Amino acid sequence: MVEFTEFFPMWDLLASEQQATLIKASVRRVIKKGTVIYRGSTDCLGLLLLISGQLRAYILSDEGREVTLYRLFERDICLFSASCMMNSIQFEIIIEAEKDVEFWLIPAEIYKGIMSQSAVLSNYTNEIMASRFSDVMWLMEQLLWKSMDKRLAAFLLEEAALEGKGLLQITHEQIARHLGSAREVITRLLRYFQGEGLVRLRRGSIEILDFPGLESLSA
Amino acid sequence: MVEFTEFFPMWDLLASEQQATLIKASVRRVIKKGTVIYRGSTDCLGLLLLISGQLRAYILSDEGREVTLYRLFERDICLFSASCMMNSIQFEIIIEAEKDVEFWLIPAEIYKGIMSQSAVLSNYTNEIMASRFSDVMWLMEQLLWKSMDKRLAAFLLEEAALEGKGLLQITHEQIARHLGSAREVITRLLRYFQGEGLVRLRRGSIEILDFPGLESLSA
Repeated sequence: MVEFTEFFPMWDLLASEQQATLIKASVRRVIKKGTVIYRGSTDCLGLLLLISGQLRAYILSDEGREVTLYRLFERDICLFSASCMMNSIQFEIIIEAEKDVEFWLIPAEIYKGIMSQSAVLSNYTNEIMASRFSDVMWLMEQLLWKSMDKRLAAFLLEEAALEGKGLLQITHEQIARHLGSAREVITRLLRYFQGEGLVRLRRGSIEILDFPGLESLSA
Repeated sequence: MVEFTEFFPMWDLLASEQQATLIKASVRRVIKKGTVIYRGSTDCLGLLLLISGQLRAYILSDEGREVTLYRLFERDICLFSASCMMNSIQFEIIIEAEKDVEFWLIPAEIYKGIMSQSAVLSNYTNEIMASRFSDVMWLMEQLLWKSMDKRLAAFLLEEAALEGKGLLQITHEQIARHLGSAREVITRLLRYFQGEGLVRLRRGSIEILDFPGLESLSA
């Protein structure tokens, strides 16, 4: 079992009653792949300590276009599902289970209560937020400066690394949603990649043939 | 004179020796318009408490393109000029004086030292970062979902509000840099706006003629 100390490296510096409060308030939850766990400001769920599985945080345009901001994995803490804790968070993130997930849920008010007393917990929370901020800044730079072919190559490599194999079960439409692009653009680029011998396209899947080639394109 | 309590609403909750340490370590500085105050990770200046003037935070591409992330005004605290305080900040922001500025500078290590002891100061710092995060998320949504004509209309209105008048002393090149676009694109759009009676273009300046028109375009 993943222990709280693995989520909070500074756990031993908390007072024992603070540790007890956090443990007592935590609820273990299992959620199926595909479920939206948190949707913008409509609810204030709490912090999620991810025991297993994979979460995806994304934003949604008025027309329903999605752009993936970042992903969270085993031992990550999902902070923005408790964004109601902070007055200054004025944006709407959606968080979904990209795989079956199991997590500890710490209610926002409990966490906020301890954070208001504990400099140690507050400073650690600062670091988590700074880390997500860095993820979003990275994405922003991708969007601003990188052309779509580079982004697509990087995306395919990232997916392959996550899946542990070069055969990706993903549609062009799904890739377009991840990258905030249109399906037509992605299809055109993938055909270009296929022409270059980088990938082989099949119905509903993409096989990576040339990892070094994609890497040099994405660099 | 702008007092520390105006920057830190929770000032009275700090211990008196913490207050004394912050005050003693602070240096008052005056910097000329156009000066780059902070450049990415090359230096670790400290927190800036802006007494007067205006700062601009932006990112820079390899090719020298700039995109404005946010601006800071009187009574704002500039946190990322002390980004070395946090390990998890992995992005490079440049901060320049957009007008002549006067500020208190608190060295990063002094601030970090007090933040590590004081939950009050750490929580407040959290709120500052969340606020900047919200600024950046707003910009990201602009970049992703809004077409450039909407962004340009919003930019002209924002400039007019900042300057307190509808006659803007700004070149197309400067606007393009702010919006991460090309001068040609901005010139084309401004001519379109002029054709619609929204603005009048002059050498080195833009006069806003139709505020409600720009507002409905930017909405």
